[in-house]
Amino acid sequence: MHIALDAMGGDHGSEELIAGALCAVKETGVRVSLVGEESLLNSHIETLAPDSKTAKLINIVHSSQVVGMNENPVNAIRKKKDASVMVAFDLVRRGEADAAVSAGNSGATMAAGIRKLGRLGGIARPGIASIFPTLKRPVVMMDIGANVDCKSLHLFQFAVMATAFSRINGVENPRVGLLTIGEETGKGNSLIKETYPLLEKSSLNFVGNVEGRDVFQGNIDVIVCDGFVGNICLKVSEGLAEAAMQMLGDEIKKSWRAKIGYLLARHAFKAFKKRVDYAEYGGAPLLGIDGVGIICHGKSTSHAIKNAILAAAQMAKGNINRDILDSLAVGNNVEHLEM
Amino acid sequence: MHIALDAMGGDHGSEELIAGALCAVKETGVRVSLVGEESLLNSHIETLAPDSKTAKLINIVHSSQVVGMNENPVNAIRKKKDASVMVAFDLVRRGEADAAVSAGNSGATMAAGIRKLGRLGGIARPGIASIFPTLKRPVVMMDIGANVDCKSLHLFQFAVMATAFSRINGVENPRVGLLTIGEETGKGNSLIKETYPLLEKSSLNFVGNVEGRDVFQGNIDVIVCDGFVGNICLKVSEGLAEAAMQMLGDEIKKSWRAKIGYLLARHAFKAFKKRVDYAEYGGAPLLGIDGVGIICHGKSTSHAIKNAILAAAQMAKGNINRDILDSLAVGNNVEHLEM
Repeated sequence: MHIALDAMGGDHGSEELIAGALCAVKETGVRVSLVGEESLLNSHIETLAPDSKTAKLINIVHSSQVVGMNENPVNAIRKKKDASVMVAFDLVRRGEADAAVSAGNSGATMAAGIRKLGRLGGIARPGIASIFPTLKRPVVMMDIGANVDCKSLHLFQFAVMATAFSRINGVENPRVGLLTIGEETGKGNSLIKETYPLLEKSSLNFVGNVEGRDVFQGNIDVIVCDGFVGNICLKVSEGLAEAAMQMLGDEIKKSWRAKIGYLLARHAFKAFKKRVDYAEYGGAPLLGIDGVGIICHGKSTSHAIKNAILAAAQMAKGNINRDILDSLAVGNNVEHLEM
Repeated sequence: MHIALDAMGGDHGSEELIAGALCAVKETGVRVSLVGEESLLNSHIETLAPDSKTAKLINIVHSSQVVGMNENPVNAIRKKKDASVMVAFDLVRRGEADAAVSAGNSGATMAAGIRKLGRLGGIARPGIASIFPTLKRPVVMMDIGANVDCKSLHLFQFAVMATAFSRINGVENPRVGLLTIGEETGKGNSLIKETYPLLEKSSLNFVGNVEGRDVFQGNIDVIVCDGFVGNICLKVSEGLAEAAMQMLGDEIKKSWRAKIGYLLARHAFKAFKKRVDYAEYGGAPLLGIDGVGIICHGKSTSHAIKNAILAAAQMAKGNINRDILDSLAVGNNVEHLEM
């Protein structure tokens, strides 16, 4: 497997990204093309990887431009043909890499993926999935922000794509739930009411409506929602987790007794943090494009980048797009609906 | 102030509800009418309040029917004219109580409130607000589930009503944020894009778009969203808080060291739990009806019921509906929009 890594994106700079790539290479023997400013990347590699065996599995592909984190994605992609994220996806398009990974501007990564690789046949709207930790095994939620105004066909196809991704992650017959505001059939807004029968008639393992409180229970493998709702869920969860930790920390700081207690229990806190850490989950896959792409959090550490590279390799190796196409072919094709 | 309490609703039975009413009466001298099965309520009062001074401020209004927690709200309200929640709102309609409180079937409470009291003049859609704890002072979110398919006019009016409620809670010039998926103007779905200019032109203290992660930061006093998104936010938050506590508990149980640590720090955990406990916030006000109503969580404890009764008294005393009508009158009337 050969992964193209946009080595210019992310909040922590190229060094962090390259460190992640080197870990992935060392651990699994995957090959990585670092895409970005050649001299800059070379100098980092010399510092980080004096080991020639590792260096052999890494190569550099020069690109002269970068998309800034706050640039308008569509405009940036149109103007900067030689941006690192564009060149990374171009390697996939030319068959020189099996997947692309970027921690840069998320919108630009999505736009570059669609521009360079095109939509997968039959898919109306590519989208972004994300993995949430739960009390049991992780759950895949889709869409988490790419598509804010959706039709039932889009939600239905998110279910197909997220199911394929869940299978790649080792879940045999992923249970699919439709995110709404009541468990009974017929509960929800008009979009949900239109989507429900499509999922019910499909060959997917549809278990019905799920509520917000089910997200973290772990009884569902795939949660389907539009990108507006999904993004708000993701951000509310991140915000609540941060705020709760801060509130608890404030209370602990108020007494010596509690501080000592915290010190004694800190391994438990660490284990808990690791369990809910996004970095363990290897980024958010861009699904529905004719190729494999992963969008990483801007603040990804080298550990998160390593996991994203391994996840990308797994998606390419498992041929996720073949699974999606097969699934659309067996009774899950609803092309008669308006796209 | 005189509050009508539906004494038949809630998961814990009438005794818990009456205990809450007695606390409210003792602490503040508010009067409470308990609505429900007379002999049942009388027997509880005899056990709970042998004190005749307290008992004087409590009276019982008989009702022969109850709406079950899982009944269809609209059908139940139509058939059970003598349901406790209907009789409670009827006391408000007849001027015999200043507000009604129920911990029963939420949908039925909403339907009964609208049926008995009618919509407030100029309000297209009554809705439900909820208070969320944050790192600073609490934030009011509206709507949290009454209206799942909304137009911009509805969201705009939620902002007006939630602002009035925030003022009742002592916030002088509540800062209003529109919940969406990016801070920049123009980010969001079509509903958000239509609502933004209405809020911008209004006399409300509109501070712009807010994201999911801003909910718990405490830099905003009012968050506006449709009931589908609001309900999912509420349930995701409740679900995450529960799951996180369970995960942390699991980790702590794994070692003696951590268990001892937890025991030493348990006051901090308790203080944290109190800070985020819904019971502290007095239920969810039903806003936009021509009167005052509060919907409590089914699992409300007596402490939560007491706080809800006090909140209802505060809303009635502060004349929240006068504030809403005044606010609609001064340049916040957008009646030209389709209701």
